[in-house]
Amino acid sequence: MFLYTENFDEQKEKAMEGLRKALEEDKVDHDIIPLLEKINALQNYFTTSSCSGRISVMEMPHFGDKVNSVWLGKWHREVRLEEVLEAVGKHRSGQLWFLVRSPILHVGARTLEDAVRLLNLAIGLGFKYSNIKSVSHKKLVVEIRSTERMDVPLGENGELWVDEAYIEKIVNLANAQVRRFKGKLKRLEEEIEKLQED
Amino acid sequence: MFLYTENFDEQKEKAMEGLRKALEEDKVDHDIIPLLEKINALQNYFTTSSCSGRISVMEMPHFGDKVNSVWLGKWHREVRLEEVLEAVGKHRSGQLWFLVRSPILHVGARTLEDAVRLLNLAIGLGFKYSNIKSVSHKKLVVEIRSTERMDVPLGENGELWVDEAYIEKIVNLANAQVRRFKGKLKRLEEEIEKLQED
Repeated sequence: MFLYTENFDEQKEKAMEGLRKALEEDKVDHDIIPLLEKINALQNYFTTSSCSGRISVMEMPHFGDKVNSVWLGKWHREVRLEEVLEAVGKHRSGQLWFLVRSPILHVGARTLEDAVRLLNLAIGLGFKYSNIKSVSHKKLVVEIRSTERMDVPLGENGELWVDEAYIEKIVNLANAQVRRFKGKLKRLEEEIEKLQED
Repeated sequence: MFLYTENFDEQKEKAMEGLRKALEEDKVDHDIIPLLEKINALQNYFTTSSCSGRISVMEMPHFGDKVNSVWLGKWHREVRLEEVLEAVGKHRSGQLWFLVRSPILHVGARTLEDAVRLLNLAIGLGFKYSNIKSVSHKKLVVEIRSTERMDVPLGENGELWVDEAYIEKIVNLANAQVRRFKGKLKRLEEEIEKLQED
């Protein structure tokens, strides 16, 4: 394949500078740092953004309006019922949602072939929604994403539509999803070095 | 860009044969057929699979086990509360979920450049989760996908965790999502001819 990122090394350097800064400011999810380091140690890849997956309680003026959304609670780990109830208790207006999001990583690749190798590794390890986000001489970006997700409406304009017993049930389901995608991240961390060129 | 599908015309012919058969057997969502026809009329693209988006009630032995999942109800349109309640009433075992899925189309492209043009058009029209699914000389596939989605646990092993008033609320939210993604499909149908080569 002929397609490659024209100024890959320059882009990688910039991205690494940004990552160092984000690490200093404690803006990177802790449990994903070892994986980021392993990817960035590979000569043909670099990470541009990442989230290790999360559970959250969010207030949205209306569906899809992310700009005006407010997180009442956000956790990159399993949660306790009490934490979620406390967040739910802060709800005043708009739509109230309980959300689970899978980990997501954006990785720049040197060549299209490198991108496809990473894509196939990730899909094979259970990151089934992985794909190639951008393809051009300026940018080759692989998105690594898994299937775990929950979108549960809890109430609106201060009114709750569900009871505490229901919230306990969905917290248990969400925690099972978190355990599942953390396991996938661990396996990716173990397998990623396979992409090192000899 | 140099990358192109080596036997594009042969692949397209096969895909069109499959589509004709699926149409005869009434296996294609009706409201997406005009869009499929317009895409397939373009010389550099062909559709390989599609779903026009749906609301469903699903019984799953446990999370992620799609193989053993059973649809208790499935609709490619807005639903009435009574239809959903009837489906919910059939629940006996496993996890019970209420789901919304956005439209999804897989489109083969002749060259990588064609794939990127379609990708950009789709993202611009609100299909923000669109991406390139496969990239090789054998297959260049664009996935067109939107953001609308709901995953709401309703109960387990015959027990319901929510009441009818809650189901009415989520049916209303789901119907709003259906209207939203049908509107996006309509706009894509109107704009897709821009991809015709002169």
